[in-house]
Amino acid sequence: MPDLRSRFDELLRRLGEISDIERANLLLEWDQATKMPPLGAAARADQLGTLARLAHEHWTAPELGALLEELRELEESSEPESFEASVVRVAHWDYEKRRNVPSDLRAEMKRAASLGYTAWLEARDAEDYEILRPYLERRIALTHEYVACREPYDDPYDVLLEDHERGMRTSEVEAVFNRLKAELVPLVAGIGEPVDDSCLHGDFPADRQREFSLEVLSLWGMNAGAWRLDDTVHPFALSLSATDVRLTTRFEPDSLTGVLSCLHEFGHGLFERQVDERYSRTPLHEGASSAFHESQSRLWENVVGRRLSTWRFFYPRLQELFPEQLSDVTLEGFHLALNRVAPSVRRVDADEVTYSLHIVLRFELEREMLAGAVTPADLPDAFAAKLREYLGVEPADVLDGVLQDVHWSDSNFGYFPTYALGNVIASQLWARATGELGDLDAEFERGEFGVLREWLGEHVHRWGRVFEPAELLERIAGGPLDAGPYLAYLRAKVDAIEAA
Amino acid sequence: MPDLRSRFDELLRRLGEISDIERANLLLEWDQATKMPPLGAAARADQLGTLARLAHEHWTAPELGALLEELRELEESSEPESFEASVVRVAHWDYEKRRNVPSDLRAEMKRAASLGYTAWLEARDAEDYEILRPYLERRIALTHEYVACREPYDDPYDVLLEDHERGMRTSEVEAVFNRLKAELVPLVAGIGEPVDDSCLHGDFPADRQREFSLEVLSLWGMNAGAWRLDDTVHPFALSLSATDVRLTTRFEPDSLTGVLSCLHEFGHGLFERQVDERYSRTPLHEGASSAFHESQSRLWENVVGRRLSTWRFFYPRLQELFPEQLSDVTLEGFHLALNRVAPSVRRVDADEVTYSLHIVLRFELEREMLAGAVTPADLPDAFAAKLREYLGVEPADVLDGVLQDVHWSDSNFGYFPTYALGNVIASQLWARATGELGDLDAEFERGEFGVLREWLGEHVHRWGRVFEPAELLERIAGGPLDAGPYLAYLRAKVDAIEAA
Repeated sequence: MPDLRSRFDELLRRLGEISDIERANLLLEWDQATKMPPLGAAARADQLGTLARLAHEHWTAPELGALLEELRELEESSEPESFEASVVRVAHWDYEKRRNVPSDLRAEMKRAASLGYTAWLEARDAEDYEILRPYLERRIALTHEYVACREPYDDPYDVLLEDHERGMRTSEVEAVFNRLKAELVPLVAGIGEPVDDSCLHGDFPADRQREFSLEVLSLWGMNAGAWRLDDTVHPFALSLSATDVRLTTRFEPDSLTGVLSCLHEFGHGLFERQVDERYSRTPLHEGASSAFHESQSRLWENVVGRRLSTWRFFYPRLQELFPEQLSDVTLEGFHLALNRVAPSVRRVDADEVTYSLHIVLRFELEREMLAGAVTPADLPDAFAAKLREYLGVEPADVLDGVLQDVHWSDSNFGYFPTYALGNVIASQLWARATGELGDLDAEFERGEFGVLREWLGEHVHRWGRVFEPAELLERIAGGPLDAGPYLAYLRAKVDAIEAA
Repeated sequence: MPDLRSRFDELLRRLGEISDIERANLLLEWDQATKMPPLGAAARADQLGTLARLAHEHWTAPELGALLEELRELEESSEPESFEASVVRVAHWDYEKRRNVPSDLRAEMKRAASLGYTAWLEARDAEDYEILRPYLERRIALTHEYVACREPYDDPYDVLLEDHERGMRTSEVEAVFNRLKAELVPLVAGIGEPVDDSCLHGDFPADRQREFSLEVLSLWGMNAGAWRLDDTVHPFALSLSATDVRLTTRFEPDSLTGVLSCLHEFGHGLFERQVDERYSRTPLHEGASSAFHESQSRLWENVVGRRLSTWRFFYPRLQELFPEQLSDVTLEGFHLALNRVAPSVRRVDADEVTYSLHIVLRFELEREMLAGAVTPADLPDAFAAKLREYLGVEPADVLDGVLQDVHWSDSNFGYFPTYALGNVIASQLWARATGELGDLDAEFERGEFGVLREWLGEHVHRWGRVFEPAELLERIAGGPLDAGPYLAYLRAKVDAIEAA
C-alpha cells in the first residue's frame, strides 16, 4: 500500500487546491453581498466566473479521474466511514457529476448568477421586475445547456436537485410535497383569526437588535475568534474554513424579524463550524446537503428559537433592551406572537405552518419554467396565482411577489425545495434528540444550549459529507424522509395557539 | 493582420483570467487585514498560496510565452503607446520576470507572507519579537531561493527592487539615498526646539474622525459607489477593479493621525481609480510602480494635506466636530502643529523631513539581511542602532522598534525604498503641476481640488503601466529621478517653521 498512500496524498493535494479556489470564490460572493461598492459588480462577475472555471477545470482534469480510478483499491480496502474511503468516494461522485460539463459553461453560469444578483438588487430598487427578466431568461437557457450535459436522467429536474441533495430524486420530493400540500392547504384555510403580534412591530433600533442577537448567539456557541455577523439584503451563511464562519442578516428598524434571521443563520454556521476539522480542504468539509443544512437553521430558528423555555431565559434581556416596546408585554404574550400563524405573502417572514407552502409553489414553478410551461414573462402572474391558490393571499407589488426572493437571480434551480425538506428533517432529528436527551426545556430555561449543540455535532455535523443525506437520516432517525413528525408538530402548534 | 487580431484576443483572454485570479487574491488579503476572524488565518494562508500558484502557473504557461512571441509583430507594427503594443510589451516583461521561478516557490512565498502577517499581529499583542523571528527567517530563506532563480543580475537586491520598480537598479536608489542621507542627517540634527503640537493629541473619538475624513475624501473625489474605507492595523489601499477601490485606516482615539492616514491612502486609491478603464483585466491596469504609487499618496497626504490653503477650507469643519479640542486653536497654530518637525521612532508618524531617513535605514537593513551581515536575531539591535545614528532617537520597546512596521512580515524586500522614492517623485510632479496650473492655493482655499485631481489623472494615472517609471517621469517632469526639488521643499519647510 505505500504507493497508494502517496497517490492518496496526491489526491489530497489536488482536492486542497480545489477547495482553496472554491473558498476564495465564496469570499468573492460574501463580499459581493456585504461589502462590495455597487460599481464593483461587473468586475466581480468576471472574477467569480474565472474562479468557477478554474475549480471546474481542476475537478475535471483527466489526471484526477485517473487518480480516483487508481484509488478504488484503497477505497475498497478501507472501512466505508474511514477518512480515506470517504474522501475517495465523495470525490469520485463529485468528479463524475462534473466531468461532462464544459468549463466555459460552468464559468458562464457563475458569471450570469453574479450579474443576476446585481440585476435583482436593481430591480428591487426600481420595483421593476422587467430589469431582472432578461437575466432570468439567460440563466434558464444556461440551465438547459447544463442539464443536457448530464444525460441520461429520468427527470431533468433530477440533475439540478442532485447538485444540492446527493442521491435524491425529484419523484421523492414530489411525494413529500404532495403530502404537505394535501394536509397544509386545508389546515391553513381552517385557521381562525390570527393572534395579535403587534408587539413584534414598532420601534426596534437595529444596533440593539444586533447586540441582543450577538448575546444569544454567543451563548449558543458563536465567538469572535471564528465567526462574524454582517448586514446584507438577503441573509445567508457560509464558511471560508471551519474557523472562519460568516453569518449575515438584515435588521429592519420596525420589527424583530432580523433577530430570527440571525438564529436561522446560526444553524447553518454551526454545521460548518462543527464538521470534523480533519476533513478541511477536502470535499467532505461541508454540510451533508442543502436540506440537512436547512434542517439545522430551521431547528435553531423555530424549534429552539420560538420555544417558550428558550424565551423564559432570554425575554427579560430583550425587555431590558426595548423597554418601551416590551415592558408591558408578558412572556406568554410575546411567545404567542412569535408563533402566530397567518398566511402571508413573503416566504422569509412566513410562520412555520404556512412556510412550506411557499416552497411547494416555488418547486412547482421551477419545474414549469424548466419545461417551458411558464416563461419568465409569465412568472409574476403565475407566482401571484399560486400564492392565491395555496395561501389565499395577494402580493401588493413585485417586491412582495416575484422579487421577494434572491434565489432565482443568483442560485440554480433545485435549491428551493431543500428548504421544506429541511423542515421535515428538522422534525425527525428533534424527535430523535429529545427521545435521547429528554425534552430539553429545563436546560433551555437555564440558558443551557450546549447539550443540544453537542448532540447535533456528534450525530449530524461532524460527519460533513461522509454519508449520503438519506444514509445519514437513516442512521440518526432510523428511517427515510418522513413528513409525519413535521405535520404532527405543525398540527400541535395550531392546536396550542387555538387553545391559548 | 486578422490572425494576429485573434491571437491578441486570445492574449487578452489569458491575461483577463490571470487578472481575475490576482484580484481575488487581493480580496483574500484585504479581508485578512480587515474582516477575517483571527482563527481563519491558517486556512487563509493556504488559500493565498494556492491562488498565487495558479496566477503564476498561468503566467508561466509555455503557451503564453509562445503567444507573446507570435505577437511581437503586432507590437512592432503598432504605436508604442497603443493599447496593443503596450499590452504585449508589458505582458512580455512580466512573463520573462516570472518564467524561471517555480510555481511551488511562488505559492510558498505567498503562504509564508500570510503566516508572517499573522505572526506579526501576535508578536505585537505579546510585545515579543521572538514570535515573529522564525517567520522572518523563513521568508529570507525563500527570498534567497527566489533571487537565485533570477540570475544573472548585478546586485541580488536588483531582483527584488524590480518587482516594484520596473527598470530600476539598486545603484540608482543608493545614489539618491546617499544624497538624502548626506543632506537630511545634518538638517535634522540642526533642528531646534520642535513646535508644540499638543493640539493634535487629546480626545478625538474615532467615529467623528471617520466622519471628517470621509467628508474630505468625498470632496476630493471618493464616493460610495466605487470606494470603501475600513479599519485595519496597518493601513493600506488596493483595488479589485477601477470601480472597487478599498482604503483602510486606523483611527486612534487620542490623536488625529488616522485622518492623515486616510488622506495618504486616498492618493493610492485615486491612482487605481483613474487608470484608463480600457486597461481593465490586463497588466496595464495598475499604478505605474510602487514609487509612483507612493508619490500620489505622499502628495495628497503631505503636499496637499498639510498645506495652509487646504486647511483654510477644512479647518472650520474640524473645529465644529472637535470643539473642546480645537475651538481655542487658531488655523495657523493647527497648521504649524501639522508640520512639526522632530525626530521620532515610528515611520508612519514621522514628519516629512525625517521620514525618508526611516526608509534609508530600512533599505540598508534589507540589503544587510540579504547579504547575511544582519540576521533576524540581530535585527532589533541593528534597527535601534540605525535609529540612533540617523535620527538620534531610541525606541522604548519592540512595538516602537522593529515591530512597528508590517512589511518585513508580509511583503518582499525591495518595497520599502519605494516610499522615499515616492517623496522624491511627488516633489518633481508637484513642481511640474504648479508650473502649469499656478500655485493652486486659491482653488484649495475654496475647496476645489478637481484641477489637481484631473491633472494627475491626465499626466500620471490614466497611463497605468504603459510607460516604465523612468520614462513616465521623463515625460512629465522632463528629467530623471532628482532629489533636488524634494530637498529644496524640505529645507523651505524647516525655514518656514523656524521663522514662525
